[in-house]
Amino acid sequence: MRSPVQQYLDDVHAGLVDELGGSTKSKNPELAQADPMMFGMAITTADGYTYASGDADVPFSIQSISKVFGYALALQDRGFVYMDERIDVEPSGDPFNEISLDAETGKPKNPLINAGAIAATAQIRSTTKKSAFDRILEVCSAAAGRELELNQKVYEYDRDTGKRNRALAWLLASSEIIEGDPIQAFDDYSRQCSISVTTKDLSVMAATLANLGTNPITGQDVFDTEVVQRVLSVMLTCGMYDDSGDWVSTVGLPAKSGVGGGILGALPGQLGLASFSPPLDQHGSSVRGLRAYKQISTDLELHFVRTSKAGLSTIRTQTTVDKYPSTVRRPDAAKEVLEEYGHKAHVIEVMGDLLFSGAEVVSRTVTNLDSDSVCVVLDMSRTDEIPDVSVDTLSRLSEVLADEETALGLVDPHDRLDGLRVPLDMEVKAFGTRNAALEWAEYKVLKRYGSPECFPASSVKEYPLLSVLSDEAAETIRAELVDETYDDGEVIRKIGQVFDGLWFISSGRIETLTAEEKGKRRRLALLTPGMTFGESALDERTHQVATIRAVTPVKVKHFSKESIEKVTREHPEVMVEFWRAVAAEAMSLVSSPSPS
Amino acid sequence: MRSPVQQYLDDVHAGLVDELGGSTKSKNPELAQADPMMFGMAITTADGYTYASGDADVPFSIQSISKVFGYALALQDRGFVYMDERIDVEPSGDPFNEISLDAETGKPKNPLINAGAIAATAQIRSTTKKSAFDRILEVCSAAAGRELELNQKVYEYDRDTGKRNRALAWLLASSEIIEGDPIQAFDDYSRQCSISVTTKDLSVMAATLANLGTNPITGQDVFDTEVVQRVLSVMLTCGMYDDSGDWVSTVGLPAKSGVGGGILGALPGQLGLASFSPPLDQHGSSVRGLRAYKQISTDLELHFVRTSKAGLSTIRTQTTVDKYPSTVRRPDAAKEVLEEYGHKAHVIEVMGDLLFSGAEVVSRTVTNLDSDSVCVVLDMSRTDEIPDVSVDTLSRLSEVLADEETALGLVDPHDRLDGLRVPLDMEVKAFGTRNAALEWAEYKVLKRYGSPECFPASSVKEYPLLSVLSDEAAETIRAELVDETYDDGEVIRKIGQVFDGLWFISSGRIETLTAEEKGKRRRLALLTPGMTFGESALDERTHQVATIRAVTPVKVKHFSKESIEKVTREHPEVMVEFWRAVAAEAMSLVSSPSPS
Repeated sequence: MRSPVQQYLDDVHAGLVDELGGSTKSKNPELAQADPMMFGMAITTADGYTYASGDADVPFSIQSISKVFGYALALQDRGFVYMDERIDVEPSGDPFNEISLDAETGKPKNPLINAGAIAATAQIRSTTKKSAFDRILEVCSAAAGRELELNQKVYEYDRDTGKRNRALAWLLASSEIIEGDPIQAFDDYSRQCSISVTTKDLSVMAATLANLGTNPITGQDVFDTEVVQRVLSVMLTCGMYDDSGDWVSTVGLPAKSGVGGGILGALPGQLGLASFSPPLDQHGSSVRGLRAYKQISTDLELHFVRTSKAGLSTIRTQTTVDKYPSTVRRPDAAKEVLEEYGHKAHVIEVMGDLLFSGAEVVSRTVTNLDSDSVCVVLDMSRTDEIPDVSVDTLSRLSEVLADEETALGLVDPHDRLDGLRVPLDMEVKAFGTRNAALEWAEYKVLKRYGSPECFPASSVKEYPLLSVLSDEAAETIRAELVDETYDDGEVIRKIGQVFDGLWFISSGRIETLTAEEKGKRRRLALLTPGMTFGESALDERTHQVATIRAVTPVKVKHFSKESIEKVTREHPEVMVEFWRAVAAEAMSLVSSPSPS
Repeated sequence: MRSPVQQYLDDVHAGLVDELGGSTKSKNPELAQADPMMFGMAITTADGYTYASGDADVPFSIQSISKVFGYALALQDRGFVYMDERIDVEPSGDPFNEISLDAETGKPKNPLINAGAIAATAQIRSTTKKSAFDRILEVCSAAAGRELELNQKVYEYDRDTGKRNRALAWLLASSEIIEGDPIQAFDDYSRQCSISVTTKDLSVMAATLANLGTNPITGQDVFDTEVVQRVLSVMLTCGMYDDSGDWVSTVGLPAKSGVGGGILGALPGQLGLASFSPPLDQHGSSVRGLRAYKQISTDLELHFVRTSKAGLSTIRTQTTVDKYPSTVRRPDAAKEVLEEYGHKAHVIEVMGDLLFSGAEVVSRTVTNLDSDSVCVVLDMSRTDEIPDVSVDTLSRLSEVLADEETALGLVDPHDRLDGLRVPLDMEVKAFGTRNAALEWAEYKVLKRYGSPECFPASSVKEYPLLSVLSDEAAETIRAELVDETYDDGEVIRKIGQVFDGLWFISSGRIETLTAEEKGKRRRLALLTPGMTFGESALDERTHQVATIRAVTPVKVKHFSKESIEKVTREHPEVMVEFWRAVAAEAMSLVSSPSPS
C-alpha cells in the first residue's frame, strides 16, 4: 500500500519544485555547476525507516553541515570544559564567514560559524595513522550508516582559494585557540566540508542526532547523549546563520544548512530530516529547503514547544481493593474485613512515558492519600519510558511511604523500576501481574485489621469450591480426591494438554504462565491453598491455555477425569452442584468489573 | 504525607541559600534595598499545583520579565506580520540595555532587549478607558491568577531616571518603529517593569505559558497557542541576555530574568518555574536563580532535547483475528473460515500520545500489510493525546485503505478520532470496545470468504450452548424454555438482580452495559442470536454485574430458575451436562489469551 507519509512528502516536494528563487552562483566551480532544479527531501524516523522524495540519491558536498559533526567529535574527544575554554556557544547574529572572535579572549562566538568550526576541527585528536579529517569522515560515515567519501575537486578548490578561512586559522593560532599547525586545521576543515553525501545520507545522520547519538539503522553508538544535547542546542540557536532567531520561532527544531544546498534537521526522539536544493538565499541557505522545513514543521507540529510532553494523563485509574479486588477467593471473614478496610489499600495505574512531570503527578497523588493507608500499589505495566529522574522521584516517594509505615507494591512486569532505591527497612514488593499485587495488598489489609480466620492457612483442608456444595455432595467428591505432591519449580500442567480433571491446592503456591514469548513467560496469576486449576481445559474442543507450575513444594488433591465420570454416573445430582459451582466461579472471574 | 517533590525543592533551596555571590547594587534605591539573603523558589505544574520553598511569598518588581507579557499582548493585538515588521527575533548577544537597532531599518534585534520591549509595548492597543499599561497589568494578572499591582516607588524612580530608555524610545520614534508618543511608550514600559509579583505568582505565570496560554488554575485563556509558541521560542534564544547560548546548552528551557531578582522559566506542556533572589551577576541575572535553574534542569531532565517525545513504542500489539478472536461463538463453518482467512483481518493496538512520529509508525505498519487485507482494526482505546496532525495522517491513511478496498475499524471509546475525514464510499466503523470491533472484523472476513452457513441467522433455532449437549439433554431443556419478547431499548436485566435462570437469544441484538460512571455507561459486549445471558448472577452470593438491554426488537427463550430446579430434580444427568457446558463456556472467556 502507498504510505500516506510518503504521499505527504511527495506533495510537499511537488508544491515547492517550482519555487525558482535563490541563486547557485558560487566561486567554487563545482558548486556553481549544480543543477538549480535538483530537489531532494528525506525523513528518517527514530527507528530507522527512511522516506525520500525527488533527487534524494544525488550526491552533493556537505559543506557547513559538517561543522555539527566536527564539533561533536571534538567534544567527545576533549570534553566540555576544554572546548568551552576555546569556543563559545553564543548566537552570533553574523554571517557565516564573519570573523566573530571575542575582542578580549579571541574565542569564536560559536562552533557553527567558520571561525568556531575551524577551531573545533583543530581540537580533534589525530594519530600517525589517522588525521583529524579521517576521524571526521569516520564519524560522518557512522552517522550515515555507510562509507562516505571526499569530493576531491570541491576540496582542492576550497583548499586553493580559501584565503579567508586561512586568515581565520591564523587568527585563531595567534590567540592560541589553535595550538597546533593552523594550516593543518584549515586543511582538515576544507576536507570535512567536501565530504559527499546524498539527501538520504543526511536524513540518517540527522536521525542519529535525533536518536541522541545512536544510528537507528546500524545501532552503532556514534556520540554520547550529553554531546548530542549540546550539539542540538547549539544547532537550534546558531545553526541557521543570521536567520537563527526567526528559525527558532517559525520552525523550532535544531538544524544546520550548508552552501552545498543541504539542510539537516533533527527532532529529538522523533525524526531526522534532510533537504537538498542548490539555489541559496543571501544567507547561504537553500531556498526550497527553508520553505520545505517551514511547511513540514507547521504541518506536522514539529516545533519544540509543541513536541514537549504533556504530563496530565499519567494516572490512568485510581482505586482501592474494596472496589477492585483481586480474583483470589477468600473466607467470609476476610471478605468482611476487606469490605470495611479495603479503602486503605490503594491501587494507582500509571501510563505513558513517566517524565518528571508525570512522576510529580504520581507522587502528589500518593502523598495526598490518608496517612493511615496500609499500602499503595503502583501499577507500572502500562508505562513506557521511565527516565532516571523519575526513578529518583519514586525513590524519594518510597522514603516518604517508609516514614508513614505504608508498604509499596509495584506491578512492574517490564522491570522498568530496577533502579529504585528504597529504605532498607521498608517493605517494597514487585509483582509481574496486577492480580498478584492486589492479592498482596489485600493480605496487608487483612494482616492489619483481620482475625486469624481471615487467612488461608499455608495448608487447607477446606476448599471454597467444595464449601458452597451441600454436605453430601462435598463428601462424595472429597472421597474421590487423590493426593499428589510436586517439587518447587515442577510443571504440573502444560499448555495444550487436554482436560484431565481438576486439582485442589492443599498447600504451597502455584503460578500460571502464558506461552513463551521472546523467551520470556509471563505469570498470569499466583494460586494459593484452597484454589483450583485444570478447569481451563474443560471445553473439550479447547486445551489447557496456561502452564501450571509449582513455585514452592506443593500438595494438591486431584479430582481426575475418571473420578468425574464415575461420580457423574453414580451421583449425577452431586455433579450438578459441582459444575454449577465451577460455572459460578468462572463467571465471577469473567465479570470482574474492570476499572477502565 | 510529605511530598518528595516538595522535599526536592527544599533540598535545592537549602543547597543554594549559602551561595553569596552577586551584588544588589542598583541605582534604583528600591532595588538596592533588597535583602540579599532573600531566596524563593516555586514550581507550578501544568495542571495547576504549586510547590514553593523559601521566600516565595515576598513581593518584588517583575522588571524585564514583563517584556515577555508585553510582547505577547502586542502579538495578540497586532499579529505576527505587523510585529515582525517592527521588531526582529534575532539573538543579540548584547547586554540588555544595548541600543541594538538594525543599522538600516532601525528595528530592535529582539523584543527582550530594552529597545525591543519598549517598541513592543508601544504597539499594544489602548482605549480612552484603558492605557497600554492597564492592559499589560490585566494580562499579567490573568496569567498569575490574581490582581497584581504596581510598585509606585519603583515606577517613579525608573520614570524619573530612565534616561537611556527615553533615548531608546526617541530613537525608535525617529525610525518610525514607534508611531505614537514615545514618552507614553516609555512611561507604559516603566510601569510594566514595576509590577509587583511574588515567586509563586511568577511560577503560575510561567505555568500559563507552559500550558500554551491557558492559566492552569483559573482556566482562563490568556494567550493564543501561536503567540505562546513564538514567545517561548524568543525566550529560549534571547531570554537570558548575553548568556543565552550557554543557557540553551545547559538549561535548555525558555526563560526570562529580571533585575528585580526574578527568573521565570517554562517547560512547555509540563511546568512553570520561578526563582527570586536579589543578588545579580554582571549580566543582571540572579546568581542563586541561575544556579537553581541549572541544577533543576539537570536533575529533572528538563532540557528540551530530553523532553521531546519518543515515538518508538506507539504500537502495543499487532495481531490478526485468527490469533486473537472475538468472544463471539460461531458455527463450525465460520470457525474454519476464520482459521484459514482470519490473518487477513488485522488488529493494531496503539498506545500513548500519538504525535506525528507515532502516527507515522501506525501508517507505516498499516501500509506494510498485504494489499489483499480484508480490514484493519485500530484500537485507540489506550491512546492519550491525538493532535490534529495525526488525525490528518490517519485521514490520509483511510484514503489509502479505501483505494485498496480494505475496511477500517476503530476502537475509539474516548472519541479521540472524531475529526477523522474518510472517503464517502469507504467503510469505516467506530466501536466502543475492542470485542465489538473484533466481531465486526470477523464478520468482514466471513462475508468475503464464508458460505451462508457461516452466519448466525438474524434468528436462530439452535443454540451453541445446547448443541454441545447430548440430544436427550438438549431436548429436555428445550422443552422448558419459555418465549419472551422485548422492545428496542428495553432493559431485560439490571445490575444487582439475583439469579433468575438463563436466557437464549433467538433474534435481535442485545448489549451488556457497565454501571453508570459519570453519567455514561460503557458497552461491554454485543450479544447476537444463539448467545446466552443471565449466568453472571449464577453465584448466589453475587448478583447480576451488567445491565442487559435490547438494542433491536428481541426474542429470547427463558430457562427460568424454577425450570432449572425442576430439571435438576427430575433429570440431574441433564443438568450435569448443562452446567459443565456453561462452566466450559465461561472458562473459555476467562482464559482468552490476551495479546499483551
